[in-house]
Amino acid sequence: MINIRPLSFLLGLFLAVVAGLMLIPAGVSLYHAEGLAGEFFKSSMITFIAAMMAASTGFRSRLTLSTRDLYLFTTLTWVVVSLFAALPFTFYHHISYTDAFFETMSGITTTGSTVLSGLDDTAWSILIWRSLLQWLGGIGFIVMGVAIFPMLNVGGMRLFRTESSDWSDKWMPRTQLIGRSLVKVYLLLTVLCCLGYLAAGMTPFEAINHAMTTLSTGGYSTTDSSMTHFSSLAHWNGSLFMFLGGLPMLIFVQMMHMRSVRVWNDQQVKGYLAFVIAASLTLGWWLSREQQMEFFPALTLATFNLISVVTTTGFASTDYSAWGPAASIIFFFLMFVGACSGSTSGAIKIFRFQLAGAVLHKALRQQIHPSAQFPQRYNRRTISEDIVRSLVSFSMLFIATIVLLALFLVLVGVDPVSSLTGAVTAVTNVGPGLGEVIGPAGNFASLPDAAKWALSLGMLLGRLEIITVAVLLLPTFWRY
Amino acid sequence: MINIRPLSFLLGLFLAVVAGLMLIPAGVSLYHAEGLAGEFFKSSMITFIAAMMAASTGFRSRLTLSTRDLYLFTTLTWVVVSLFAALPFTFYHHISYTDAFFETMSGITTTGSTVLSGLDDTAWSILIWRSLLQWLGGIGFIVMGVAIFPMLNVGGMRLFRTESSDWSDKWMPRTQLIGRSLVKVYLLLTVLCCLGYLAAGMTPFEAINHAMTTLSTGGYSTTDSSMTHFSSLAHWNGSLFMFLGGLPMLIFVQMMHMRSVRVWNDQQVKGYLAFVIAASLTLGWWLSREQQMEFFPALTLATFNLISVVTTTGFASTDYSAWGPAASIIFFFLMFVGACSGSTSGAIKIFRFQLAGAVLHKALRQQIHPSAQFPQRYNRRTISEDIVRSLVSFSMLFIATIVLLALFLVLVGVDPVSSLTGAVTAVTNVGPGLGEVIGPAGNFASLPDAAKWALSLGMLLGRLEIITVAVLLLPTFWRY
Ligand SMILES: [K+]
Ligand SMILES: [K+]
Repeated sequence: MINIRPLSFLLGLFLAVVAGLMLIPAGVSLYHAEGLAGEFFKSSMITFIAAMMAASTGFRSRLTLSTRDLYLFTTLTWVVVSLFAALPFTFYHHISYTDAFFETMSGITTTGSTVLSGLDDTAWSILIWRSLLQWLGGIGFIVMGVAIFPMLNVGGMRLFRTESSDWSDKWMPRTQLIGRSLVKVYLLLTVLCCLGYLAAGMTPFEAINHAMTTLSTGGYSTTDSSMTHFSSLAHWNGSLFMFLGGLPMLIFVQMMHMRSVRVWNDQQVKGYLAFVIAASLTLGWWLSREQQMEFFPALTLATFNLISVVTTTGFASTDYSAWGPAASIIFFFLMFVGACSGSTSGAIKIFRFQLAGAVLHKALRQQIHPSAQFPQRYNRRTISEDIVRSLVSFSMLFIATIVLLALFLVLVGVDPVSSLTGAVTAVTNVGPGLGEVIGPAGNFASLPDAAKWALSLGMLLGRLEIITVAVLLLPTFWRY
Repeated sequence: MINIRPLSFLLGLFLAVVAGLMLIPAGVSLYHAEGLAGEFFKSSMITFIAAMMAASTGFRSRLTLSTRDLYLFTTLTWVVVSLFAALPFTFYHHISYTDAFFETMSGITTTGSTVLSGLDDTAWSILIWRSLLQWLGGIGFIVMGVAIFPMLNVGGMRLFRTESSDWSDKWMPRTQLIGRSLVKVYLLLTVLCCLGYLAAGMTPFEAINHAMTTLSTGGYSTTDSSMTHFSSLAHWNGSLFMFLGGLPMLIFVQMMHMRSVRVWNDQQVKGYLAFVIAASLTLGWWLSREQQMEFFPALTLATFNLISVVTTTGFASTDYSAWGPAASIIFFFLMFVGACSGSTSGAIKIFRFQLAGAVLHKALRQQIHPSAQFPQRYNRRTISEDIVRSLVSFSMLFIATIVLLALFLVLVGVDPVSSLTGAVTAVTNVGPGLGEVIGPAGNFASLPDAAKWALSLGMLLGRLEIITVAVLLLPTFWRY
């Protein structure tokens, strides 16, 4: 049996938080005299009533969740929260509920694909609501990556099981402590990022919004021209904090608690750093040669755009499709990479490449020496068979999701390039695709409604590492 | 130590066979009075001298090969044979050695990408040489798939280990018997296919050539318009024999020897049949709706083009990019599918999808019931961990090869669509790509030389299931 009542209670709590947060843009609207405060109050009220109904259904039930409850709870929360968080957009002129839901799901999954244009003239309250959604989605995903995914072994993430991912009563106080520390670190980094942007010449409003969407690797901006609008210093500040957003946030917490930098001796972090440095330098060198630019400006652009894609942030700074035909293929492949587990970034992620590489290296040596024993370790842990199988499942589902989504898009009339890159950018949570329609300079408004719902589903699947949602489709999940 | 001398001896034997086969186009040229016989005699002579030198180096050595020798031998044979088999093309006007080697590698790997145009006016001897290369490559790959790959466990192919894939002295007579039976079945099917084409209105020369390139799932044609040139009956005959070419050839042999049709109760064969029927009907229905065609002509075209891509034959019949934008995405994904193991077809192949599906299904159930035991079987054999790991390695290498090849192509100046689909079509051994340059209506002549060499390597890697070549890159392979 699925425990409906505690699920309902928890859902109610989440919705109440969303209702509360809607008062922030309401405040902004009042302060800025935009006349949208009423819309936000209305949304907040509706959400709050729903929250009370859900919470009262499950009130006084015991808060014990089985593994199966967790799967259902995770998926349900993201969907229901998005359904309500979309309300403020629908009250904004010209926006259908489809568009509002797409924008919300894109925000909360930190994907950052947008259907809005004319951002420079959009009400501040709407802009801050978009940024807030990304910032909250980001921390939500970090907490899932630390506390839920390792326990469920989603896509081989049992590798990252620590005491903080134990879900028993005994560890509850410790889990809460770590949760609070994660939020503190995330908040601190956001403030630092904001100060950096201020120093780089952004207005306070721009700095606050971009700090929230940088740390969460979300990529929403307050201007249609995205980061192109800002200085070179702002680019480097963005590069730095997107990079930090791609790190396993738990390591900052461990460093604080253990007062030691030894925790940074982590295979995934080292691989991520090495990849970003090597790829940025290569891309910068190639760009300076290809476009006859000086090396430093080329490196600035290359690093920013590379980190933006690899961390799945998706900020655009100059339309890289203007860098020649090679760039489109390079950036297409880079979309799949992703940063570290337990960060805000999506896509495949560095540790899975490292795991697959280790499995490959062992398998090739085994081809030559069939009976030899090759031990296999990752970060001093054995790569067990269930981790390998979980990795295979993740990769399969990841590719199958993209293929099916792309086929669906092309069949409802989206052009081939937008279909393929749109499917990829949704499932990897990067944000912009390639091509004229949904490329870095375009937006998703012109797509048919069916495509927008399918892409929303793709973003959710990508954010929840697909497996979390896929198990819900098994008949055995519902059987007893 | 690598056993150079027996390798050299065997290579000599293979080259001698190639030298002998060059006399067939020489005969065609004499009969047809094309004046190219001398060129073929010259090529044959050069190849024969090389063959004698190689064979004499290894003469009287013991013919025992270790696993490592087999890896080296397999790769070496295909490369060296291609180097010599390319000679007749170089003697033909306007063709550089790069183009000749590309055409040969494309032929012998049964890829069927071509740099030649004006096929309708090309000398018969050249056309028959291309078809022969594909026909020989096809049977060569079948024998590898039965006798070598299962023993080496290339990409999970240990699943298909039978007595015929044992490489010990004891089984040698039996292996030879099965080898001869395979050749007989292949020859018989080719003759039947040829008769079918004759009945469908082809000239004898067209029928012979197309029969050879149909059974081998190679896809070379004697006319620039490929199969568009021929009747609807020829399409159905082609569909049937491409489908048969995609079956595990060993099952025909087992059926003959065991006088039983029970051998067809095979999970891979059933999956392949089900997929082809379901996909053809769907595509036919979609095409008739999309293009306002009658159902039967639409089904004819859909079935032919689907089987052509899925079996990695790559015959073109009507440029399917004219079927609207959705078709390009559908055919792009279909390129990856492939038919059965132990057939002449390339790409990923049905059994790997079935294996991955089984692993996925188990892993998802394991997510819900972490401690339950789920046994896993494929064709009544257990899916062991080394098979899963071999599958992971294959998939990784397959994708990595395509990505690196596509990046290389775009960096040497090929356009993005040709780069991506060219890399896919080479590694999957399909033949034509998508887009204006290398699409079903185009050819590869205009690509830069570097791209042609890289694509040749891609075809070879695809044909040898990548792993066979990849182990040669390990330092430990050469160490002792
Ligand atoms: K993003
Ligand atoms: K082919």
